[in-house]
Amino acid sequence: MSPPQPDPYDPTGIEHHTIPSFTFASGTTLHDVRVAYRQYNTSSTAGTVLIPTCFGGKINTTLTFQSTPSSALSKYHVVVVAMLSNGESSSPSNKSLFPAPGELHYEDLVHAQHDMLTNGLGVKQLEAVIGFSMGGQQAYHWAVTYPDFVKRAVGICTSARTSGHNYAFLEGPIAALTSSIDYVAWKQIKAKLAEGEEVGHHLREVRPKQGLAAWARAYAAWLTSAAWFRERHWEKMGCKDVEEWMCVREDGYADWDADDLLTKARMWQMADIGSTKKGVVSQLRHAPGDDQALEDALKSIKAKVLLMPCRTDQYFPPEDSEGEMKHLKDGTLEVIESSWGHIAGGGANPADVAFMDAKLAEHMQR
Amino acid sequence: MSPPQPDPYDPTGIEHHTIPSFTFASGTTLHDVRVAYRQYNTSSTAGTVLIPTCFGGKINTTLTFQSTPSSALSKYHVVVVAMLSNGESSSPSNKSLFPAPGELHYEDLVHAQHDMLTNGLGVKQLEAVIGFSMGGQQAYHWAVTYPDFVKRAVGICTSARTSGHNYAFLEGPIAALTSSIDYVAWKQIKAKLAEGEEVGHHLREVRPKQGLAAWARAYAAWLTSAAWFRERHWEKMGCKDVEEWMCVREDGYADWDADDLLTKARMWQMADIGSTKKGVVSQLRHAPGDDQALEDALKSIKAKVLLMPCRTDQYFPPEDSEGEMKHLKDGTLEVIESSWGHIAGGGANPADVAFMDAKLAEHMQR
Repeated sequence: MSPPQPDPYDPTGIEHHTIPSFTFASGTTLHDVRVAYRQYNTSSTAGTVLIPTCFGGKINTTLTFQSTPSSALSKYHVVVVAMLSNGESSSPSNKSLFPAPGELHYEDLVHAQHDMLTNGLGVKQLEAVIGFSMGGQQAYHWAVTYPDFVKRAVGICTSARTSGHNYAFLEGPIAALTSSIDYVAWKQIKAKLAEGEEVGHHLREVRPKQGLAAWARAYAAWLTSAAWFRERHWEKMGCKDVEEWMCVREDGYADWDADDLLTKARMWQMADIGSTKKGVVSQLRHAPGDDQALEDALKSIKAKVLLMPCRTDQYFPPEDSEGEMKHLKDGTLEVIESSWGHIAGGGANPADVAFMDAKLAEHMQR
Repeated sequence: MSPPQPDPYDPTGIEHHTIPSFTFASGTTLHDVRVAYRQYNTSSTAGTVLIPTCFGGKINTTLTFQSTPSSALSKYHVVVVAMLSNGESSSPSNKSLFPAPGELHYEDLVHAQHDMLTNGLGVKQLEAVIGFSMGGQQAYHWAVTYPDFVKRAVGICTSARTSGHNYAFLEGPIAALTSSIDYVAWKQIKAKLAEGEEVGHHLREVRPKQGLAAWARAYAAWLTSAAWFRERHWEKMGCKDVEEWMCVREDGYADWDADDLLTKARMWQMADIGSTKKGVVSQLRHAPGDDQALEDALKSIKAKVLLMPCRTDQYFPPEDSEGEMKHLKDGTLEVIESSWGHIAGGGANPADVAFMDAKLAEHMQR
């Protein structure tokens, strides 16, 4: 038996909204910034729900809670949106002069998505914005940036501010990739091509393979949990041993653009709704953080918030969600009791999806 | 304020035992294999305690439980021994043809240490073998290999078999280092020099700096815990933010030989007293493992065992120690209740050292 091969990505149903002139939080202005999205159930009169992608997500790998007629979102108009830098929306891989790693911020994602929803689709208000991991951090930033636009916010395995531990974990894959022999070479080639040529066009199919594999290995043990390995759930992924599971993880990153990944990872490290609320652009170097600003930002949220951390998530632990609950006006905490760790929230385990779907359905009635 | 700089290593008191001809588990035989060690309290009549080094340990950075007259081991003859491949004993960095990463096994360490104790120091029996992390894995291998030589075995933040999760975590720093641009170059130079020259002599002062830094960053978030970062204990390490703590971790590995680190890490991944008991040399590729053999090996241990995992250790979790307890004839479990994670067991936090010292003192009376 060979380890499972990933299915080729199917881009069915993806649409694009183009913003003629978009100014990033860093100050850069670019023309024709594109936001990729997919709509489900457009004839719905129940209202619109926005689901931004997560770190490793594409539009058509995102959980929509629409799989059966009784699913939590089956009656809603659902818009799944690709975050900037995921390779489907504008990203380092497909857009010259796109902000480099460390220069893209959650504020940019939310502003671009707001433009897509209002100027593109004519949406006046969201019934909910729902996200997993970095998608949940987008949901939090939405609720702080547009408090009257968002009736509900749902954060699955996520946080309002990236913790020091989470920051430190991300330094691992980032260092593994950026120190790798082929990423260094790839950047040198890219720098030469960038002197007047459209970068993405030339380099989209070239990958620093060894660097991406090192990235995957520095990331893999974080994704699930010690209990997940103890219970040998890699067997449920079709792997005969842990080494095969590592190879599956390598395959999962093999087709990503290295700078798209790095730009997202650096943005993730800087997540802080406290800065957003104060109108300060987050800095990359991880300072202790302004606890009062975070508290103020949480208190400013008008949306009804549902937080669903997973008990065994190693980098978005439930303790951090519990801390946020203290300052939310209208917060509900439902812990996913699962050994699947972080990826429980992404839909890796059917029992956890059923739990989330049920809790989400309750929340949509609040 | 700058981040704290590490003190230069002080080799005071280190002695060497030379084994004229030593055959490794891999089949290789080398002449003049050296075991470095340091003795404390040689005039003691209370008996001898062996303390092998941990993964990142040197002889004189190892906790000896002798710091005060009332410390647990203050009346014992303590021998701290450097594991093979730590750079003080024979290692890839100082010995031509030394087993490469994946070819050194815990059995080799234990046999070499046994030779040092019996033929070198004339020790007939150990009152205890005590180890933290990889040191604890050595203690376990000692208890299985020489069941009548070891009266007590103490494992601090360790396991009898490296878990799948622990294996997977180690893949991160290993991939980060081995994929790095300067490690690849360093290996090429080393291969050329090795054609007839003493490798360590030429390369001991040359380091793949970027690769070692990537190793450190892929390792850093694992060392403590999410709670440790939440409680900002990096401030107790003299760091003003998490990024400075990452730099401190880089400094901690900057002077290590890359292949010494890799040889130890691969051995760690293969730890399995079940294989040792069966007389099978462990394989690198992580298979599910033979649970029956592990159980048989645990049951075969005659030593009184004390296990002290830390509650928040991310890769040697207390659940794994609890699993081992079920099969030990004479086992005691004392969990270190601390947010310091794995490094609690290495002596990073004074309160945890005091706890361990007290529990160790009790155990030495059993």
